[in-house]
Amino acid sequence: MTLPKSHAGIFEKQSFWHIATISPDGTPQSSPVWATFDGTHIKFSLTRGRQKFRNLNTNPAVALSAIDPDNSYRYLEVRGRVVSLEDDTELAFVNSMAKKYMGLDKYPNHRPGDERVVISIEPTGASSMG
Amino acid sequence: MTLPKSHAGIFEKQSFWHIATISPDGTPQSSPVWATFDGTHIKFSLTRGRQKFRNLNTNPAVALSAIDPDNSYRYLEVRGRVVSLEDDTELAFVNSMAKKYMGLDKYPNHRPGDERVVISIEPTGASSMG
Repeated sequence: MTLPKSHAGIFEKQSFWHIATISPDGTPQSSPVWATFDGTHIKFSLTRGRQKFRNLNTNPAVALSAIDPDNSYRYLEVRGRVVSLEDDTELAFVNSMAKKYMGLDKYPNHRPGDERVVISIEPTGASSMG
Repeated sequence: MTLPKSHAGIFEKQSFWHIATISPDGTPQSSPVWATFDGTHIKFSLTRGRQKFRNLNTNPAVALSAIDPDNSYRYLEVRGRVVSLEDDTELAFVNSMAKKYMGLDKYPNHRPGDERVVISIEPTGASSMG
């Protein structure tokens, strides 16, 4: 499944993606993340301590939506499933996200002991508006 | 349950709320909406034709998150459940949302035949950052 060409460019911008995950009790959660799309997978960073990590580790179904930072009435929603949760031991991925979103070489909020992982999502559906 | 005072003010701004709902197949959906908080319930507008309406009619569990328009690293997430889906026959509610978000007296995108409803959510939990 490929993302709609008209809206995939929202991933190239400093757009905040709201990730919906499902808790073990079956209720949804939603929170904003930085994300990128490499042409095949959507990727974002997470620490192992987060409830969102526990949700994704249990239930791989996700959805994420973002508004085009240049037009509030244009958005993309992607539905998909987590295909990998990999250690970001050298912090290469979260640092690349800090570069994209903050123009910094290193992610400034890393704390010793934080176990960073890279979540990869395979898109299975998409909706867009505007 | 009351929303955290530190972050409830995000509802007073022109903030876009990403609503996570659960589809009948158990997977999440996410999309942005206008919303307001009246001190007890969170409310947003929807048409009956939307998948999101069908999801909420089947499964009342929702989560919604928004970034503070004045600070991208400040956000509020609210979890809750739908307590009513009422007809917005006179369009009073969607017009009030157009006033808040667009400064207009009437919602400009209403089409004849659109069946507008007001969704009311009772908050059951909240998380915030920043």
